[in-house]
Amino acid sequence: MFETAELGRAVAKKDFEAVIPGLRVELVDLQQRLRSAGFPVLVLFSGVNGAGKSETINLLNEWMDPRWIESSAYQPPSDEERERPRFWRYWRDVPAKGRLGLFLSAWYSRPFLDHVYGASSAAEYEAQLDECAGFERVLADDGALILKFWMHLGRAQQKRRLKALEKDPLQRWRITELDWKHWRMYERFIEVAEQTIRATSIPQAPWQIVEGMDPHYRSLTVATAIRDAVSARLAVRPPNGSKLRRRTDPDGAVPAERAGDAAAAILDGTRRHNVLTDLDMRQTASKDEYAEELPRQQGRVNSLFREARERGVSLVCVFEGWDASGKGGAIRRLTRALDARDYRVIPIAAPNDEEAAHHYLWRFWRQLRRSGRVTIFDRSWYGRVLVERVEGLASPLEWRRAYSEINQFERQLTGFGIVLVKFWLHVTPEEQLRRFEERQSIDYKRWKITDEDWRNREKWELYERAVQEMVERTSALDAPWTLVEANCKRSARLKVLRTVAEALEGALAREGDGHRSGSERSTKKKKA
Amino acid sequence: MFETAELGRAVAKKDFEAVIPGLRVELVDLQQRLRSAGFPVLVLFSGVNGAGKSETINLLNEWMDPRWIESSAYQPPSDEERERPRFWRYWRDVPAKGRLGLFLSAWYSRPFLDHVYGASSAAEYEAQLDECAGFERVLADDGALILKFWMHLGRAQQKRRLKALEKDPLQRWRITELDWKHWRMYERFIEVAEQTIRATSIPQAPWQIVEGMDPHYRSLTVATAIRDAVSARLAVRPPNGSKLRRRTDPDGAVPAERAGDAAAAILDGTRRHNVLTDLDMRQTASKDEYAEELPRQQGRVNSLFREARERGVSLVCVFEGWDASGKGGAIRRLTRALDARDYRVIPIAAPNDEEAAHHYLWRFWRQLRRSGRVTIFDRSWYGRVLVERVEGLASPLEWRRAYSEINQFERQLTGFGIVLVKFWLHVTPEEQLRRFEERQSIDYKRWKITDEDWRNREKWELYERAVQEMVERTSALDAPWTLVEANCKRSARLKVLRTVAEALEGALAREGDGHRSGSERSTKKKKA
Repeated sequence: MFETAELGRAVAKKDFEAVIPGLRVELVDLQQRLRSAGFPVLVLFSGVNGAGKSETINLLNEWMDPRWIESSAYQPPSDEERERPRFWRYWRDVPAKGRLGLFLSAWYSRPFLDHVYGASSAAEYEAQLDECAGFERVLADDGALILKFWMHLGRAQQKRRLKALEKDPLQRWRITELDWKHWRMYERFIEVAEQTIRATSIPQAPWQIVEGMDPHYRSLTVATAIRDAVSARLAVRPPNGSKLRRRTDPDGAVPAERAGDAAAAILDGTRRHNVLTDLDMRQTASKDEYAEELPRQQGRVNSLFREARERGVSLVCVFEGWDASGKGGAIRRLTRALDARDYRVIPIAAPNDEEAAHHYLWRFWRQLRRSGRVTIFDRSWYGRVLVERVEGLASPLEWRRAYSEINQFERQLTGFGIVLVKFWLHVTPEEQLRRFEERQSIDYKRWKITDEDWRNREKWELYERAVQEMVERTSALDAPWTLVEANCKRSARLKVLRTVAEALEGALAREGDGHRSGSERSTKKKKA
Repeated sequence: MFETAELGRAVAKKDFEAVIPGLRVELVDLQQRLRSAGFPVLVLFSGVNGAGKSETINLLNEWMDPRWIESSAYQPPSDEERERPRFWRYWRDVPAKGRLGLFLSAWYSRPFLDHVYGASSAAEYEAQLDECAGFERVLADDGALILKFWMHLGRAQQKRRLKALEKDPLQRWRITELDWKHWRMYERFIEVAEQTIRATSIPQAPWQIVEGMDPHYRSLTVATAIRDAVSARLAVRPPNGSKLRRRTDPDGAVPAERAGDAAAAILDGTRRHNVLTDLDMRQTASKDEYAEELPRQQGRVNSLFREARERGVSLVCVFEGWDASGKGGAIRRLTRALDARDYRVIPIAAPNDEEAAHHYLWRFWRQLRRSGRVTIFDRSWYGRVLVERVEGLASPLEWRRAYSEINQFERQLTGFGIVLVKFWLHVTPEEQLRRFEERQSIDYKRWKITDEDWRNREKWELYERAVQEMVERTSALDAPWTLVEANCKRSARLKVLRTVAEALEGALAREGDGHRSGSERSTKKKKA
């Protein structure tokens, strides 16, 4: 989930300073237009200490017209507040229609810390997160535009940032021993952060994860996201719009495609740096290494899966990737490690009539197999947020909603004890071209390449963006995406096998601890 | 919640037989139109044993075209089913677009019984209900029309019904020792039923409670509800409608106002019998009785509240009722029992500018007071589903959504330990008229009566219907509606005082048991 926010994305000071004046004018102008609109805007900042939550709030206060903006940060509850239901103070601070409210952590803060410190059980925390989501749903149903930013830093980034703040005489006061204590608990924070983001990324108010290391990048990201969301909503809910009109676009919270403007152009530039471009594509495995390692890893997968089968543990593998990235070959190397009675490979193409007549998840639910089996999806439910998104086969409303639907689906799988492994096989555009041309020149491979493949290539950037967002929204500790550097087929196949083996090993170790039992699993949304 | 389904509503056989042929034609015709529509229909039956769940499913199968209808009932899970996540079997049975699926208890059944038998904790059950609601939300977001009927019988009704079935040689097989065992556990069933209905009456798929005693009444109610909901949805999502159009009406699940037709006319007839007409309006208190009882009840409230204040327990009283039903007088008799420093009376009229610029619940949240206080609302948040509904000040979408918003709000109050008491003061139309005329004839009372009061009188039936639905949707064990027979002001005032006293007594007894502590309360959605 956070892989996408540890890329070191940055915006040069010069570029930043060039676009800010224009952006500020736009923001102030939007505030004016918002004043007569029939909805409030809530902007919530949460995330890692030092990732710039309060700095961003300060900056927005500086940039925008302070008369139409309200900032709310929360101390431990006062007597007054302790004597009322928990949401009382947040309700009080909900901005009026036409106004913009900035919230620092707010309703997430206390339950989050309580759970990090183990003061609440997993079930209690889930219930509290439901309350948070319920609160936001009530406001969003009434028309509120809610933007939630999760400001993130990697573990090493956070350390660097805390040290830098300590060194700065003007900022030193910000850093206390508690910050360092929390830094030492980094893994625990991330685990709870992930649970929080998955459970409360409701379609009306999804979290947007922002890399917090570079102040220019994060400020520009947040400010343009606010600008885009408010102007998109104003476009569908113009002031004095009819009631009906005002209610037809649950979609406005998400930025519309932007016409080229200076700030967007800079951010698009940083997008060229993403989880895929971040991969080290020079990885290779020699023939000898492969000849030795392949049977070793296959043997490992074989013996681990036999143990899993004994214990009734199922494995579900998802293969996604570029055309000609070698999914089929990788799948075959995996299935050779398994007994034909245990696995099934499900190739996913366009839905048939019966499938098209159901919810898009239906055809995946029906493919779930009994305990102790392996199901391999050659393409999967992620088609919704990849090909269907890029090709316009699903509406923006549909594919944006799909992230939380997919998370809910996968949580039911992993909650039941199924081991879920997801691969994106990545090749560079040059390597893909080489393979396309090779396929066309070899008679028995020509069928593999179609006009559609060539067309897809033209949409490389759109797919890249979709992959980045997919990883951001659906990678989870118990259902992680593994990005496979697949320019070298041999090394890609070995990585797939190793990843499957490690996932099985981890699951069997947890099972062995007796942490989860069958009957319990199905009743918990998330493992404790 | 179930008061509204223990009225003994019935439809005469003759009337029933007269309208059924026409209704069947309509249903079959709708099925045909549905076939080319882009959404499936799910109809779920749950509720009390013997209230006609399976009989209704049989009847619908008989009435409708069996080729486009699918019924699903569930046994304890098979091996196959146990080895998959819980919702696997329900996903398999989701009908295709254009089809109608009837479900018997289905996804609610097992968690419900587990919780009735104490096999799951309150928090676990809440999590399971969230899964149920989440499943329905995913389907509804995709366009599915979901109707949920909770078939109800009162305790005595259920006994009668079980006995009757036992006597019938053709039906005897239906009744087992388990049914009687469950009947003896009636209170526990009702408690869990209420929790279930409140937690899963999401705006996209609210429960409709149906009185199950009379087969003609319940069959006609269910069949017309299906007819109305399907035809309303077909009207806004016509076959081959544009995508955008199809997604703009989250409201279609609820029947549109019906043009007069035979079946509707009969049901409207049964509506004349409702929770209000069911009250015994002859209740009176003599002057002597009142003179003796009033100070006694006031003293009781006073001493109970002083204890509550000591313990930090707050009291919130809601007064709703017809114009001139005596709300003000009853409130004054209550406040005289209290110390002026402890209570505040909040009269609710049209919202001021600031209030109107917020979510309608905002102005009630801000009125919540500290621990150990009394807040009395003279009219309240229920205006949303009463005057705003009847006068068209809130859209159908808004007031229908309000039931679950109100339940969520009140659950936060009672979950925090606040004692919540809600009164509807009922007078007959004749008594109201007498009071209006009296007010007009007395100089110092004339200001109390306005043209609006006379206009409201004309909408008596619409208000009656709104009250019936309000009680059905928002009366709960920890937040019950008390309907006060108020033709006699003296007896009404005494009933109000007694009810407050009893509510305080109950809460103090529970507090005394140490069942709830302050810090816990705020984290639980519902008391254990």
